[in-house]
Amino acid sequence: MHNVLAMDIGGSRFRVALFDDAGRRLEVLEGETSRSGGRDWMLDQLRSRSRELLDRSDYPVKACGISFGGPVDFERQQVRSLHVQGWENFALARWVQETLNLPCRLDNDANAGALGEYRFGAGRGTGSIFYMTLSTGIGGGLVLGGKVHHGRDSLAGEIGHIPVSESGVACVCGGRGCLETFCSGTAIALRGREWAHRRPESAARVLKLSGGKVENISARAVAEAAAAGDSMAVGIIQESAHWLARGLLMVVRLLNPDKIVLGGGVARAGRVLLDPLRKNMEELSSPTLPYSTEVELAELENYSPLYGATALTLETAAEGAKS
Amino acid sequence: MHNVLAMDIGGSRFRVALFDDAGRRLEVLEGETSRSGGRDWMLDQLRSRSRELLDRSDYPVKACGISFGGPVDFERQQVRSLHVQGWENFALARWVQETLNLPCRLDNDANAGALGEYRFGAGRGTGSIFYMTLSTGIGGGLVLGGKVHHGRDSLAGEIGHIPVSESGVACVCGGRGCLETFCSGTAIALRGREWAHRRPESAARVLKLSGGKVENISARAVAEAAAAGDSMAVGIIQESAHWLARGLLMVVRLLNPDKIVLGGGVARAGRVLLDPLRKNMEELSSPTLPYSTEVELAELENYSPLYGATALTLETAAEGAKS
Repeated sequence: MHNVLAMDIGGSRFRVALFDDAGRRLEVLEGETSRSGGRDWMLDQLRSRSRELLDRSDYPVKACGISFGGPVDFERQQVRSLHVQGWENFALARWVQETLNLPCRLDNDANAGALGEYRFGAGRGTGSIFYMTLSTGIGGGLVLGGKVHHGRDSLAGEIGHIPVSESGVACVCGGRGCLETFCSGTAIALRGREWAHRRPESAARVLKLSGGKVENISARAVAEAAAAGDSMAVGIIQESAHWLARGLLMVVRLLNPDKIVLGGGVARAGRVLLDPLRKNMEELSSPTLPYSTEVELAELENYSPLYGATALTLETAAEGAKS
Repeated sequence: MHNVLAMDIGGSRFRVALFDDAGRRLEVLEGETSRSGGRDWMLDQLRSRSRELLDRSDYPVKACGISFGGPVDFERQQVRSLHVQGWENFALARWVQETLNLPCRLDNDANAGALGEYRFGAGRGTGSIFYMTLSTGIGGGLVLGGKVHHGRDSLAGEIGHIPVSESGVACVCGGRGCLETFCSGTAIALRGREWAHRRPESAARVLKLSGGKVENISARAVAEAAAAGDSMAVGIIQESAHWLARGLLMVVRLLNPDKIVLGGGVARAGRVLLDPLRKNMEELSSPTLPYSTEVELAELENYSPLYGATALTLETAAEGAKS
């Protein structure tokens, strides 16, 4: 018997958790990420919360896994993120090894989410899944035969930056017409604000969920209103589902995985997103190429990446035991 | 020392060949496929040519691999093709086992081409390739870590039927705006004929290569004229490259393979296709997601699927030796 440590470092929240060697969650410490604190603040948090959990663990803790909410160079086990100060090329796995004296493995949150759902969530028992996270941005991860496929530049799964329209708007990535510009949380919040500006009477529910302020409308508010049947919000989610279907049909054509699993905040809209998405995929598809890839919602919700970090630690602990 | 048998069954040509156990080609028997002959004619040909090669082999022949130019159910080792009479659900691998008394494995031509280039061609020494065949239609195959990824319904790699345009024409698959409608051999021949109708003076070279008849213009004639610098033909190939770039950028985003390898008749256009393709992919891509996946032409040309069939036989022979 042993336990493992798992960390999920995100732009708005972070988590440090203790799991047992069967992947059962024992304890989670959560906090809000300080944007101004930068890397050093975060490392302080990770160090102190980890020590707290290590002290309380009934069994020896053998390894640590990390999900990082930004680009990761998997081969070098380094963060590659530019958007939070101080993280660029930071060897986070080595820092854990030196600070906590634990073997550690690191991946980005989309790949970790994919691995988490594959091992412990909606992908249990399948041979391959594509996991898509619909959040502020859009990310994706691919698990084939139990392993994350990272690709040559650790860029596999980047479904958010596939051009799905010839006439799209500019994307943060520098491209144009990317899927992310149509159905990320950012895009959905923007649509909600547009509606609230032009037709405030139709946006009453979304506005109420946003404290009455147009500029506070979030994708979460739109998703919640849609789940409750608000017609403007349903319209926005359905438009997203139209584009999402184009993106996911590409996944079916190229990879034909056993399952496609949708996670992230926008997926919390639930059936109001899933039903039109499945219908649009069916309409786009062709009668001569029938496929049985299923599209489902993530089961672990906010915790997919944390469970994925756990799966990474269990691999690491197993390899450590062998060598 | 032993030898193996390889077959490549295509809509216009078929090949039966003898390879040695290092994958060296010893002898190839080729013929034109009789469209009217159907399945039984083809089986007669395969039987007699195979026996000819088995008789002449200096070493025992241990296994047989087949590339089939149409849909294959890999798990069941059956043909799934509907477009040539008599093949539907035919257990071709079992037929070889019973007729030639050789263990046999079967795959479709795109997957076989991918495996052939991976083991013996442009993909040698890489960890993963995506192979795309630009022929009458468009097919694709994915090799990851030495294995073809078939997907849940043996449909992985079907890049020809990804919608790349919102306003495209109807595709043979029943979809709309599929990549295949823009840059398959069929699409290229059609563009050539349109030009020759509307502006015969600009199509002189392509017409000459087609015996002076508009209705005989083929993709091969357009590709040859383009390779020789004919400006109308170059324009058609460049337009294809525009759409191809959209399709291949999806492969880069989702799979980020070590290499993308282009095979099939249209790829014979060579640099006149490859140069604008690489340029368009660069333009479509984003500065914040730099990738190092290379795009190259197939090295084995017409023989990629035959070499892939050989790779399949070598796997089969190795498994037979183990068990």
